[in-house]
Amino acid sequence: MPGELAKDCVIIRDPTEASQIYNKGYYGYPMSGGGLELEFLEALFLVESSRLEILSEGKPVSLPKLMSLAASDRRDFEIKYIVYRDLRQRGYIVKTAGDDFDFRVFPRGGSPTTTPTKNWVAAISERAIFDMSAFVEDIDRAERTRKELLLAVVDEEGDLTYYRADRANPVGKLNEDHLNDAVESHLLEDRVLVFDEAGAEQLTKNGHYGKQLGKVLQLSLIEAAYLMENNRLNVSTLATSRNVPLPRFRKRALKFQSDFELRLNAYRDLRSRGMVVKTGFKYGTHFRVYEDNPNKIHARFLVHCLPEDHTTTWPEMSRAVRLAHGVRKEILFAWTRSKSTEYLRLVRVRP
Amino acid sequence: MPGELAKDCVIIRDPTEASQIYNKGYYGYPMSGGGLELEFLEALFLVESSRLEILSEGKPVSLPKLMSLAASDRRDFEIKYIVYRDLRQRGYIVKTAGDDFDFRVFPRGGSPTTTPTKNWVAAISERAIFDMSAFVEDIDRAERTRKELLLAVVDEEGDLTYYRADRANPVGKLNEDHLNDAVESHLLEDRVLVFDEAGAEQLTKNGHYGKQLGKVLQLSLIEAAYLMENNRLNVSTLATSRNVPLPRFRKRALKFQSDFELRLNAYRDLRSRGMVVKTGFKYGTHFRVYEDNPNKIHARFLVHCLPEDHTTTWPEMSRAVRLAHGVRKEILFAWTRSKSTEYLRLVRVRP
Repeated sequence: MPGELAKDCVIIRDPTEASQIYNKGYYGYPMSGGGLELEFLEALFLVESSRLEILSEGKPVSLPKLMSLAASDRRDFEIKYIVYRDLRQRGYIVKTAGDDFDFRVFPRGGSPTTTPTKNWVAAISERAIFDMSAFVEDIDRAERTRKELLLAVVDEEGDLTYYRADRANPVGKLNEDHLNDAVESHLLEDRVLVFDEAGAEQLTKNGHYGKQLGKVLQLSLIEAAYLMENNRLNVSTLATSRNVPLPRFRKRALKFQSDFELRLNAYRDLRSRGMVVKTGFKYGTHFRVYEDNPNKIHARFLVHCLPEDHTTTWPEMSRAVRLAHGVRKEILFAWTRSKSTEYLRLVRVRP
Repeated sequence: MPGELAKDCVIIRDPTEASQIYNKGYYGYPMSGGGLELEFLEALFLVESSRLEILSEGKPVSLPKLMSLAASDRRDFEIKYIVYRDLRQRGYIVKTAGDDFDFRVFPRGGSPTTTPTKNWVAAISERAIFDMSAFVEDIDRAERTRKELLLAVVDEEGDLTYYRADRANPVGKLNEDHLNDAVESHLLEDRVLVFDEAGAEQLTKNGHYGKQLGKVLQLSLIEAAYLMENNRLNVSTLATSRNVPLPRFRKRALKFQSDFELRLNAYRDLRSRGMVVKTGFKYGTHFRVYEDNPNKIHARFLVHCLPEDHTTTWPEMSRAVRLAHGVRKEILFAWTRSKSTEYLRLVRVRP
């Protein structure tokens, strides 16, 4: 079936052939008068599938020539095409979206004339910068239009990884009582020790704080700061027994951990949602988070805290998602913006 | 059993008691004349296990007081003690090592008087900087003395992760023939396309290069550079068909990927060892590496390339090891030093 090369598209003039192409897969855009206008990536896909031949001034256009034209017409054409091609081969109807996303995808069995769009798809190179605020804008835009957002990331070898992106609203079952008396504790370098056995028991039973090391309950800096905020802990230095008030404690903690305040914000928010929060060090992330008593259940979430202006690379994001998947947990990105904490979720999916 | 607090140790004067403590666990250092000198961490462990009481001028020394003294006597005492305590509780004989490592550990059933040291142990805080050259020095020192090197990393909650660290010497089974004619290819943005089907087949069959995308074989920048080095590939631009010589190609690649040369060094070395190297993007690492045909076997290694002066954080290392473990691969760190590539391995172990 022959198409004709135009400046930025391919045109099928024969009405019968045009409607055949359109009806079997909804390729192109029907022209008033009966022809069909194909985008370059649609035309390329049809050529590759041996369903279309393209002529320019009567002569066949080669594949390299067509790719070269398409590449000069659309930025990151190769990335977009790899994603388009993959989704088409999986049997989806894929159309170019507006300005906000690359493609819209219809549910299996659906079509542009009968069904609303199911997914917005962003086709992304692994070399692209991951910008948290742009990411959240995309999520919000998808949510407002009630579509699922799919991120299709193309690696340097042309392999594809799909991520579904949305917000999460994690909630736990812990009902913590903050009304006990303040427990006495001692600061030793970058940890806090509770020698008082009754106090230690209170903190363990009511909130699952700390870790028992021999006869001593050991609290992390972040646990201690949170307990001090709630008047459940007094801290003094081990060496001199001098009281350490909260502001001074936070200053000291910042010296050991430059992102201490960022973590504390997320920690506080997660705790307020009835969850138990422990270090995620073993997973190379900030927290592992339990919806209930950590002695009885596995952590459901890994949480990584990101500052408002966070940018990173896609391999970094890919690693975080992959790792969580490997240990059967969900990764949540806790994003602190104007003091409030939002949770974003990336899940690897096979569309 | 009473010990006596001295300036930087605890002394047991009674010869019978001293030899009892020493013989059951090899705690302390026998003194000429029959007493026993205990290091603070040994004494603390014995106090915690209710096997020792310590007096100072006839009065019992409290646990906080003893910890405070111990902490002022030894840098990062808390970190060292957590590791010492854990290994002792696992039933190992543990003694303080010389200047190079923190502890030496004897094989199960062994003792300082009958068996050589099995492990050197470094007790490390998760907040410590990970310095690649210091790490390699430690590995070499352990290898020279024929001991296994264990890194015991203590997280902010006092939890322990043990890593065995050594060198690796990965070797594959691929016997590549570099003698075919150069294949023609085209550079399109950050990838290289082979339209010539016979050429594409050569590159796929002889070395498993590239990925077939429809009718086109697509090579990554790094694959293309390596093939050009071996005179197996000619590259020209897709748009203008102008030849791109290797130096210009490498310069362009550097623009897309600032660590391109670092990766290329490791890629070349891994290929020269008979292995097939593919991107590790899905795992958030540089390469996944196959010992043979990647269509027949799973990748055995994940390889991450590090520059000579590399430093990072322990959570970062922990993440890399954990991820590899979760997908049942070995993580190797490819360290390029004065143009040669060395492979370092970190494996999570339970001692």
